[in-house]
Amino acid sequence: MPKLRSCLYVSILGLMVLGSLEIHSANAQERAKKSLPNFVVIFCDDLGYGDLGCFGNPTIRTKHLDQMATEGMKFTQFYVGAPVCTPSRAALMTGRLPCRTGMCSNKRRVLFPNSKGGIPAEEITLAEALKGGGYATACIGKWHLGHHKQFLPTSNGFDYYFGIPYSNDMDRVATAPKGREAFWHPKSEYFNVPLMRNEEIIERPADQTTITRRYTEETIKFIDEHQDEPFFVYLAHSMPHVPLFRSPAFEGVSRRGYFGDVIEEIDWSVGQVLQKLRDTGLGENTLVMFCSDNGPWLPYGDHGGSAGPLRGGKGSTWDGGMREPTIFWWPKTIPASSVAADVGSTMDLMATFHTLAGLKMPTDRVFDSHDLTPVLKQTGKSTRDTFFYYRGYDLMAVRYGPWKLHFKTQSGYGQPKPEIHDPPVLYNLDHDPGESRDVAKENSEVIETILAEVKRHQEEMVFADSQLEL
Amino acid sequence: MPKLRSCLYVSILGLMVLGSLEIHSANAQERAKKSLPNFVVIFCDDLGYGDLGCFGNPTIRTKHLDQMATEGMKFTQFYVGAPVCTPSRAALMTGRLPCRTGMCSNKRRVLFPNSKGGIPAEEITLAEALKGGGYATACIGKWHLGHHKQFLPTSNGFDYYFGIPYSNDMDRVATAPKGREAFWHPKSEYFNVPLMRNEEIIERPADQTTITRRYTEETIKFIDEHQDEPFFVYLAHSMPHVPLFRSPAFEGVSRRGYFGDVIEEIDWSVGQVLQKLRDTGLGENTLVMFCSDNGPWLPYGDHGGSAGPLRGGKGSTWDGGMREPTIFWWPKTIPASSVAADVGSTMDLMATFHTLAGLKMPTDRVFDSHDLTPVLKQTGKSTRDTFFYYRGYDLMAVRYGPWKLHFKTQSGYGQPKPEIHDPPVLYNLDHDPGESRDVAKENSEVIETILAEVKRHQEEMVFADSQLEL
Repeated sequence: MPKLRSCLYVSILGLMVLGSLEIHSANAQERAKKSLPNFVVIFCDDLGYGDLGCFGNPTIRTKHLDQMATEGMKFTQFYVGAPVCTPSRAALMTGRLPCRTGMCSNKRRVLFPNSKGGIPAEEITLAEALKGGGYATACIGKWHLGHHKQFLPTSNGFDYYFGIPYSNDMDRVATAPKGREAFWHPKSEYFNVPLMRNEEIIERPADQTTITRRYTEETIKFIDEHQDEPFFVYLAHSMPHVPLFRSPAFEGVSRRGYFGDVIEEIDWSVGQVLQKLRDTGLGENTLVMFCSDNGPWLPYGDHGGSAGPLRGGKGSTWDGGMREPTIFWWPKTIPASSVAADVGSTMDLMATFHTLAGLKMPTDRVFDSHDLTPVLKQTGKSTRDTFFYYRGYDLMAVRYGPWKLHFKTQSGYGQPKPEIHDPPVLYNLDHDPGESRDVAKENSEVIETILAEVKRHQEEMVFADSQLEL
Repeated sequence: MPKLRSCLYVSILGLMVLGSLEIHSANAQERAKKSLPNFVVIFCDDLGYGDLGCFGNPTIRTKHLDQMATEGMKFTQFYVGAPVCTPSRAALMTGRLPCRTGMCSNKRRVLFPNSKGGIPAEEITLAEALKGGGYATACIGKWHLGHHKQFLPTSNGFDYYFGIPYSNDMDRVATAPKGREAFWHPKSEYFNVPLMRNEEIIERPADQTTITRRYTEETIKFIDEHQDEPFFVYLAHSMPHVPLFRSPAFEGVSRRGYFGDVIEEIDWSVGQVLQKLRDTGLGENTLVMFCSDNGPWLPYGDHGGSAGPLRGGKGSTWDGGMREPTIFWWPKTIPASSVAADVGSTMDLMATFHTLAGLKMPTDRVFDSHDLTPVLKQTGKSTRDTFFYYRGYDLMAVRYGPWKLHFKTQSGYGQPKPEIHDPPVLYNLDHDPGESRDVAKENSEVIETILAEVKRHQEEMVFADSQLEL
């Protein structure tokens, strides 16, 4: 055997010369010894469950994301904390339901340029937690948790910020086309959104045609400069939120039209980030997670995405509004080509990253976060039994195992008032992901159990005042 | 380099000892020299576009099919020749639209146990063509092109037949539960369908609980016995057509319930077939194709499948009725992890297999078959411009590039008469696979072009008399 091993070694050396293996840098090997993993969270805007090849899209080609799934783990029931932007991002960043942090509202669904509020100082962000654990931290992209100085990423645990601080369709200029006309043939000039570096506005209006590319370049630069310390990068793309933009290199590349071009540029971006990690030898020491903030903005037709087999889209607590195409990647730690059987949530990143970074979760507040480490390593299950679907401060539905019980339903847009379900309607999401067959009658015991869970939840819940109405 | 090579050789030998590499039999190496590829067509019954993991199903786990797609090529716009069983199978087997062969009807959608007709003798089947080219041929599973002797597989080019000759829900016994009740808790005794070997009935009623397993075993046995000659196996599963059955080993394995168990047993079956090909060293000389005969039977709820993002199901010319999750696998010939940009059809197997088997297509009749070889080898495109959607003898719609023009639409079940569209409605399937946004108004030139194609098609079309009404 020793002889065989030395031969293998020679062979591998030969293969390296032939370019078949990655060359790990000495720096990376140093870093790996420290064993603290890096975290990269890639978060899209308004991407639907059905918009990636590996989640069944017929015409959008996402070869890098498909490869990421082949090398990693798909989550097919992964939920965001709210069906719209600001509360969803607050949930990811705090590990808590937005109604606990005040980052939601029944009146103003998200923060607007004239909003005065933002993420409360007492909230602990993922970045603050990891920074406390010795991590270098960067937020690159859309923030949308407050654009006044005290709310910016750099005031919330991030060493570095580069991005558009709120939605890319805001600050429309008076001379731009009215209504949706500005979206069909969008120009950066129509939307006077700022591009910021740390606390400074460096470009206004932000040139959105190159925004995905520039976010990617900034991410790669940050990784490059922080190879020797643990890092957390939150890469929050402004796309594919309308108005859609893509670089000239991606004009017309997709069979799915403008929207497909935008997704394929995001796919390119993912490929660039993963390749950078491979090239620097950091791949096996970095957990990369891909997700989006909420479902597709369906009223925008061709310019909106698809929830695939799910019902509803952005703004709604039907699963199409809150279940997102999610991939975790961490070669040699997460089994390749795996599919999680567990329900997960962006809120679970808080507990998961704490565990992986060797940190203890704070005990002075309630979290809605369950450690996904056993799921990722396939050593066990998530402790999550329930998922609560809120629209603003309204508890609309609850998931318990495969079951989803709706008290109220409302499409994201175009349905002015919720439909009240009394008695509530029940779906088995494992059997019926499109929520088309009410099975309440046959499952009264299940409903009893769920109602007991809801009672427990409501008894411990303390709503915070809305920051979005300031 | 010579030294390195010998070291590599030693290393590889070592790895073989460690069980990491396949051991190719001497026989297989002999066979490979002949260079004629084997063909295995795995055809399901009523499987929907959205029922596989690699086509976006959230809860059905199809690890072998996903792996097949990772190693092979997905077709995301692959059509069957008709939205119901008999005509769809006739289209695959002849490379011709069913209205050309008489294997359709506007009155009786498929063949029934009391039908007298079947596939006309003058039709050339895939099996007859390949048998003429020196292939050993086997049909294992559901036939449904006529159950009288002259119509059976063994009268139509197959050396061997094992299977249930028509649908597994036929021949219901008088004492079985009425209506759909017999499907919800099915027993083999309720359906007095025959199981045949060649021309003999060997079991009646067929024990359906083991049918998927036994079809698989028969397939593997046939491959085993024909390693030394080119072969064509048509493995046509009776599942997941209702009544659903699966082996005891698959009871309760799937989160998707009974239907999911059935699909996961089919997935196991695919894994067994591919592994047999790998183990015998035939993998790189065998084209395996996976598909189904039509979309999901939606009225059966949990016992029916899902068309994923597509509209409609079985019986309908909406894409959900005729677009099927399709995978081609042929290691080292078909590029791994590829996705075809082309429209394909089961009718294309005729021209494709002719090319790959070095045969010439007959010139005495019209085929609706386009050679997919350039697509599979990624050396070019399919020559197919159009796809015609028929329901019986009615031309309902036509696809031209990304466009689909509907003259009539009808859901598969529950809509007694078609809706006539005059003027026709137009969808862009590349942008809108769910056929939700009529774009006829903005695309009058496209419609003109399509209508000219339809005129050409109708001028050359000669309908054959229905064999299903005999």
